[in-house]
Amino acid sequence: MTRQPEASFHMTPEEFRRRGHEAVDWVASYMERLEDFPVRSQVEPGQVRAGLPEHPPRQGEPFDAVMADLERVLLPGITHWQHPSFFAYFNANASGPSILGELLSAGLGVQGMLWSTSPACTELETLVMDWLLELLDLPRAFHSSGAGGGVIQDTASSATLCALLTAREQASGWTAHREGTPRELTVYCSTQTHSSVEKAVRVAGMGTDRLRLVGTDADLAMDPQALRTAIQDDLAAGLRPCCVIATVGTTSTTAVDPLRGIGEICQEHGVWLHVDGAHGGTAALLPELRWIHDGLDLADSYCFNPHKWMFVNFDCDAFWVRDRAALVRTLSVLPEYLRNEATTSGQVIDYRDWHVPLGRRFRALKLWMVLRHYGAEGLRHHIREHLRLAAWLEAQVVAHPDFLLAAPRTMNLLCFRHRRGDAVNQAIMDLLNASGAMFLTHTKVQDRLVLRLCIGGTHTQQRHVEQAWALIQQAALELPDAG
Amino acid sequence: MTRQPEASFHMTPEEFRRRGHEAVDWVASYMERLEDFPVRSQVEPGQVRAGLPEHPPRQGEPFDAVMADLERVLLPGITHWQHPSFFAYFNANASGPSILGELLSAGLGVQGMLWSTSPACTELETLVMDWLLELLDLPRAFHSSGAGGGVIQDTASSATLCALLTAREQASGWTAHREGTPRELTVYCSTQTHSSVEKAVRVAGMGTDRLRLVGTDADLAMDPQALRTAIQDDLAAGLRPCCVIATVGTTSTTAVDPLRGIGEICQEHGVWLHVDGAHGGTAALLPELRWIHDGLDLADSYCFNPHKWMFVNFDCDAFWVRDRAALVRTLSVLPEYLRNEATTSGQVIDYRDWHVPLGRRFRALKLWMVLRHYGAEGLRHHIREHLRLAAWLEAQVVAHPDFLLAAPRTMNLLCFRHRRGDAVNQAIMDLLNASGAMFLTHTKVQDRLVLRLCIGGTHTQQRHVEQAWALIQQAALELPDAG
Repeated sequence: MTRQPEASFHMTPEEFRRRGHEAVDWVASYMERLEDFPVRSQVEPGQVRAGLPEHPPRQGEPFDAVMADLERVLLPGITHWQHPSFFAYFNANASGPSILGELLSAGLGVQGMLWSTSPACTELETLVMDWLLELLDLPRAFHSSGAGGGVIQDTASSATLCALLTAREQASGWTAHREGTPRELTVYCSTQTHSSVEKAVRVAGMGTDRLRLVGTDADLAMDPQALRTAIQDDLAAGLRPCCVIATVGTTSTTAVDPLRGIGEICQEHGVWLHVDGAHGGTAALLPELRWIHDGLDLADSYCFNPHKWMFVNFDCDAFWVRDRAALVRTLSVLPEYLRNEATTSGQVIDYRDWHVPLGRRFRALKLWMVLRHYGAEGLRHHIREHLRLAAWLEAQVVAHPDFLLAAPRTMNLLCFRHRRGDAVNQAIMDLLNASGAMFLTHTKVQDRLVLRLCIGGTHTQQRHVEQAWALIQQAALELPDAG
Repeated sequence: MTRQPEASFHMTPEEFRRRGHEAVDWVASYMERLEDFPVRSQVEPGQVRAGLPEHPPRQGEPFDAVMADLERVLLPGITHWQHPSFFAYFNANASGPSILGELLSAGLGVQGMLWSTSPACTELETLVMDWLLELLDLPRAFHSSGAGGGVIQDTASSATLCALLTAREQASGWTAHREGTPRELTVYCSTQTHSSVEKAVRVAGMGTDRLRLVGTDADLAMDPQALRTAIQDDLAAGLRPCCVIATVGTTSTTAVDPLRGIGEICQEHGVWLHVDGAHGGTAALLPELRWIHDGLDLADSYCFNPHKWMFVNFDCDAFWVRDRAALVRTLSVLPEYLRNEATTSGQVIDYRDWHVPLGRRFRALKLWMVLRHYGAEGLRHHIREHLRLAAWLEAQVVAHPDFLLAAPRTMNLLCFRHRRGDAVNQAIMDLLNASGAMFLTHTKVQDRLVLRLCIGGTHTQQRHVEQAWALIQQAALELPDAG
């Protein structure tokens, strides 16, 4: 055919090299400048958008113009999750090797829905998921060499949904996907469980009126006796207990549900046990914290998020099942255009059947790069250091006449409050967050407003925690009496 | 407290700069070397894993060792989606500005679940979603300035699920999330619709026995009359039609369902219409292809994937709804620890309520960088060029005595077959794919095996399409008589 003029708007490799170096330098400079920024963005609603054109450009624009707007318009609208004084929510800590893993993954641009669409994407994922089992000393039943296996999901919300769907299928005798969710299935979690469970129950069509919020003990961990009673009540009412979701490190206070007691009840009643260790799981890198997973051998599925506290940038949730065939049976739909020899042979894993999305990117790469960069030793060093800083802060709070602990510290989250009540605690938080010097969030414990301070940032060092504590005390002193 | 020795295993900004430059150079070199690789990976199951240590490293390893394994062990296991002779499935094309957007997003490391957790992440997303409406001339009803709005999802599978869940809530009088999915709800798509619809129906607990596969016309587009009959039959049986999913560019053959006829039926019966333009939507960048969306103004929701044909690397699905309040009402669960002033004020968007996951990364950045780098002009140039190449190939197939078109070409996918039957077509495909010179896949049309060749790669030029056609003809000649 007639050759068209070779017009191209693509970046050449040479241009990519140059602009790529600039982008890397920008990120390095961002790392260096982190402490210059207010942690929480101080823009007003609409301010970022107002700084950008309302209409898309007709002609392409130079890369410099884009980078200038990133600096000038977007940066003030960023809440700096990588700032060493970010103590809010749970961390979503990134790291050098992880960022470069994400870059390489984007550069390769593979889509790993099937083994055959990039065998390395699937096989590396299976391998690093097995590595994680070893690093955290998780049950062998999840290992890919047996009937189990692991997969990377985007978030624990999605992992919980997949676990719940599989539990639903199993409890319905593998009919729910065809005949709809039976009304008699019930689900159990504690009053402290993450909102993703309620969301998953909604999505799966079970109805939140079938979700039982089981009571907790004084430490805000699920009370197995209350769970047993709830299950028995439902059985007596002709309902069918389907799934229990236990948590290792609740969002509110990092309470650790007693997995063994819960697991025994689940086994007794043939109920699926899913354990959500989204944030807390990482702690099991340390032998001295392995108690959090005692009883996990009784679970049917488990997840934790390396993208929270393990230096892998978002998204990377690690999800395992004891019986991968059950998961695949729940989620597999095979149209003609995806059929291929490797799939038919049954020798390979096709991860598209392990979650809701069909397509998937090569997320194992960044996880692998983090594990190799740090090694077990490096990861353990930093997690241990976070715990040391949290223990120090706990001691300060306990020793202070005006503050008290609001929940037991199980790992790197401190929940505490000023004795003078909710208004004062709210005011302390608002003052500190508005100052830009640090960022912390709140929860409610026994109906009281409680400050949450999580120490898990990549760049967080002793001086940041010391400064945070100084600022908190100072804020309390400066407040007018809000008694 | 006692200062600990300042041991750190993190990459310093300086080390990140150096290793980042190396990683960028590797990606640039990968772009330059793409044509040296076999398109489809030639490894055997297990081969990649066998090349890597079974156990995680105790000590951290040098970055060079990781990059060496990427080159030596992983690269042979990559099926090269960015190879210019990748014609399989639909493309998942990356581009320079997109890869750098992903890098910057990872470097910023923000988590955009709430407006307040990074206002720029939310506001840029809303803006670029509005930009896309303008670029593709999509209905104004989806614009954020009114009752509608757009959000980035990971994949069209997830977008379809969210649309279906909202339709389910609406059809159940907003009770399904609380009382479970009613059994009487029915869903409609064509026999050609993507498998994600069946997956979503399963997930949502509706039961696939409530999914109606509506017949198509000779061009494999949904037959509105058949849809009307199916809906009427269900109504007569006491069921409640809930949602229709129409497709703009089906996966098998890029057939375009007649949206106006379908939309009118949906309006008549108060049924939610979701339109899936995952691959095909991008074609509407061109005014001459806008006919594909005729009737989209009757839809309640729509999605297409910039991560397929629009030079934004995976994942980036653009999803819009006409009534964002309905979507949020379906998916919103607000626990105490996420409460904040901005959310309470009602002035901002919290995208966590627009999809299943809670956390989300800053995907708008790469989309914004692609739109600014190329401009409307650059995007249109390349899409038009892909279409020109597809038209050329179509003419060759039509003119060839041994080959024939198996479905009408609507955009950049060609479905064709050798006249000598399935075995020959399978053999042609297997031969070509095994050769590594090109990669194409298949589908079935009227029960015949048909070759699918999609022209949408960033690096695909005229010479690659010419070569593909030469290889196909040659393969057909070289085959032993498989008649």
